[in-house]
Amino acid sequence: MRIVLLLTFLLVSTPFFSQTEDEKQIKAIYDEALTNGKAYDWLNYLSNQIGGRLSGSVQAQHAVEYTKEQLDSLGLDKVWLQPVMVPKWVRGVPEFAYFETKPGLTTNVPICALGGSVSTPAGGLKASVVEVKGIEDLEKLGRDKIAGKIVFYNRPMDPTLINTFSAYSGCVDQRYSGAAEAGKYGAVGVIVRSMNLRLDDYPHTGSMGYGDTPVNQRIPAAAISTNGAELLSTTLKLNPDAKFYFKQNCKQLDDVQSYNVIGEITGSTYPNEIMVVGGHLDSWDLGDGSHDDGAGCVQSMDVLRLLKETGYKPKRTLRVVLFMNEENGMRGGNKYAEVARNKNEEHVFALESDSGGFTPRGFSIDASAENVEQIQGWRDLFEPYLIHMFYEGGSGADIGPLKEEGMVLAGLRPDTQRYFDHHHAENDTFEHVNKRELELGAATMASLVYLIDKYGTIPTKKIKG
Amino acid sequence: MRIVLLLTFLLVSTPFFSQTEDEKQIKAIYDEALTNGKAYDWLNYLSNQIGGRLSGSVQAQHAVEYTKEQLDSLGLDKVWLQPVMVPKWVRGVPEFAYFETKPGLTTNVPICALGGSVSTPAGGLKASVVEVKGIEDLEKLGRDKIAGKIVFYNRPMDPTLINTFSAYSGCVDQRYSGAAEAGKYGAVGVIVRSMNLRLDDYPHTGSMGYGDTPVNQRIPAAAISTNGAELLSTTLKLNPDAKFYFKQNCKQLDDVQSYNVIGEITGSTYPNEIMVVGGHLDSWDLGDGSHDDGAGCVQSMDVLRLLKETGYKPKRTLRVVLFMNEENGMRGGNKYAEVARNKNEEHVFALESDSGGFTPRGFSIDASAENVEQIQGWRDLFEPYLIHMFYEGGSGADIGPLKEEGMVLAGLRPDTQRYFDHHHAENDTFEHVNKRELELGAATMASLVYLIDKYGTIPTKKIKG
Repeated sequence: MRIVLLLTFLLVSTPFFSQTEDEKQIKAIYDEALTNGKAYDWLNYLSNQIGGRLSGSVQAQHAVEYTKEQLDSLGLDKVWLQPVMVPKWVRGVPEFAYFETKPGLTTNVPICALGGSVSTPAGGLKASVVEVKGIEDLEKLGRDKIAGKIVFYNRPMDPTLINTFSAYSGCVDQRYSGAAEAGKYGAVGVIVRSMNLRLDDYPHTGSMGYGDTPVNQRIPAAAISTNGAELLSTTLKLNPDAKFYFKQNCKQLDDVQSYNVIGEITGSTYPNEIMVVGGHLDSWDLGDGSHDDGAGCVQSMDVLRLLKETGYKPKRTLRVVLFMNEENGMRGGNKYAEVARNKNEEHVFALESDSGGFTPRGFSIDASAENVEQIQGWRDLFEPYLIHMFYEGGSGADIGPLKEEGMVLAGLRPDTQRYFDHHHAENDTFEHVNKRELELGAATMASLVYLIDKYGTIPTKKIKG
Repeated sequence: MRIVLLLTFLLVSTPFFSQTEDEKQIKAIYDEALTNGKAYDWLNYLSNQIGGRLSGSVQAQHAVEYTKEQLDSLGLDKVWLQPVMVPKWVRGVPEFAYFETKPGLTTNVPICALGGSVSTPAGGLKASVVEVKGIEDLEKLGRDKIAGKIVFYNRPMDPTLINTFSAYSGCVDQRYSGAAEAGKYGAVGVIVRSMNLRLDDYPHTGSMGYGDTPVNQRIPAAAISTNGAELLSTTLKLNPDAKFYFKQNCKQLDDVQSYNVIGEITGSTYPNEIMVVGGHLDSWDLGDGSHDDGAGCVQSMDVLRLLKETGYKPKRTLRVVLFMNEENGMRGGNKYAEVARNKNEEHVFALESDSGGFTPRGFSIDASAENVEQIQGWRDLFEPYLIHMFYEGGSGADIGPLKEEGMVLAGLRPDTQRYFDHHHAENDTFEHVNKRELELGAATMASLVYLIDKYGTIPTKKIKG
């Protein structure tokens, strides 16, 4: 413990001896990002020339090829594709839905199938609706009131939570497990209020799972826009017998071959110590996936370019990893960690950007207290860039499987207020990404990578061991 | 000095004795703003039912009437209009411009007259162009190279400055004084690169002045979009003899009657100590003035409502002031201060929101060191809302004239990255304001007003006097 403390002191205090060099390097990184950043151009191509990149799609394959080609052009030491089999779910023709208060008196509402859902019968599905505020309501209602009906999950995200990801966490069980749970009570389908704090007309898709529900007992699940949910809820109060109709012909196909895209600057001094920076290359299919997570990919790519352009040669090996299939399977993240373990690679640091390309505010850090403190000790270096959050917390879904004791994982934390206006919806598009905000995120990531590389992480595990 | 220090200590330390009450009150303010805020609805009306509110326009008058009516509905102690004469500049028919590389070979570019500019001759103005990077270049070029030409000011905003207002400050002299200065060297007109960090097609207007230039020597001035400026600059490199043509028929009319709109909750204990919270009700005419400064107005209005709804009765008198004519005359701010002095009113605090309705980050504070420290002492109360900036700096143009020693002035400081994409341009419109970001700003303002009211400011002047 004392050794760790001493080590912490030495490492934390080191910046004071070379503050000016760190300040200069970080300024150079931000200047390069804001004057000559490549992230926005790359995102433009990914979003507008390729578009939504659902795992297994032609677009996802194009994105693999395009990003590999761009990494090739950066003069890195190595660029390669890491094969990974991914699930292939397809949406099929656009979904259609209405509610009916009297026979023939119908009102259309915007819905979309949830990712992984089964289709409705070919002619669609029509049934009475029971509205609930969450999975916990199912037991109170019981099979009598649910069997044969469509369950309408309508718990909104809590607007009083300042971090909108907390509001998302408080609701997303309805989307992920709503169908599996309602199916146990004999429901024939589920409609879920979109995970969106704003009232608008976009349905938001996202992953769902059936758990151990037998294939022939799986019921279809769709998201309804927040305005649609409000209207349906009001309608049900006035017309409790209103029926809901929806039709979707989505389908789960066989797994297909895909890839993680990886580029590397080999470390000059400690090539066996690996640092990863990444985002996920797949997206949902409704928008073009600019915020989720085209932004994180192009920021991560630019991290390597920013360090090269500012003349910094990492002592440790720095990899950009564009993970495939975060949205509906996590196969890419799992595969990368599996290969790393099989090759006995030592990963000391991993940083993910998967919270949108908005103005960066800081990092959440998943590491030992000593490592969290070391990063917090760099606060003053980030202050001129208005980066102020350095808190202990989760990192990112794709890098999570790499986690080992002693390793430092972190997630870039941008402003969250607008994220769920766009998340998994048709309006997650390029024009909603601001160039400077995106570039500031890339520079913030590159600055942390620089500091971690220069001062090293504190290897708690090895000292203790 | 020691008395001041002791007083500072007492005041700064007070929060610790009642932290829980402050935490509760501030949480109540944010909760109310995020669940039941009125700012967004008010802004919707101001922007979409009224629109751009140039001083002296019918829209400005409608905005006066609408906001007074809304303040009347809040059950304040007093609501009134404060008469003020304002300048009336009108744009006339849309401007038109092109450059010509050979006779008849023309390319149109988007321009708009700068606010306060004279018109071109009725048939427009055509001349050769001399490009400069700023006013300082004029002297180097001299009258020989400028007389008879159009001066094209093309210094871009510096993208490496993290606070975009600093980049604006570094360029805006071209817009404000460019015509007066170029006129001294015989220029016949000026074209100014829009104050916008983004490359796009919107020309951005804004105020300009002729100083003591005699009326008959004033030359017309227009802004060109950033894309237009880039194109013109490239064209001039390839065709130094290219001519620029522009036509505008804007005009300065006689001053007209207008109003500041004021609402008041009279203080329960110290009614003679006045706190002001405000924004400016006028805007430019190209967009609907949602960010500049509809946002600041509706946030300020909601500050009074938030305190009322959360059951807080201010000890001091709290006024919302919607100032008229910030953009091209500052008549409203000057009038308010003039009337306050004539009535011998004691203003202890003033807070302005005039930097857009984006995610709030903190405050800049124009006050004695003791008062700045007191506010910084409340940092922990704001931390849950991710408000982290409390720095000494300017406050707001409209409240500036109130400044007296001992008084505390402050400006709300939101995220600045997107502000100049919209500032004074056709795309300063309602859909670019996010509801939650706007509401967080209102809550942040109300929380500071609450703390200032509860703990009082530190009356440096009186102790010294």
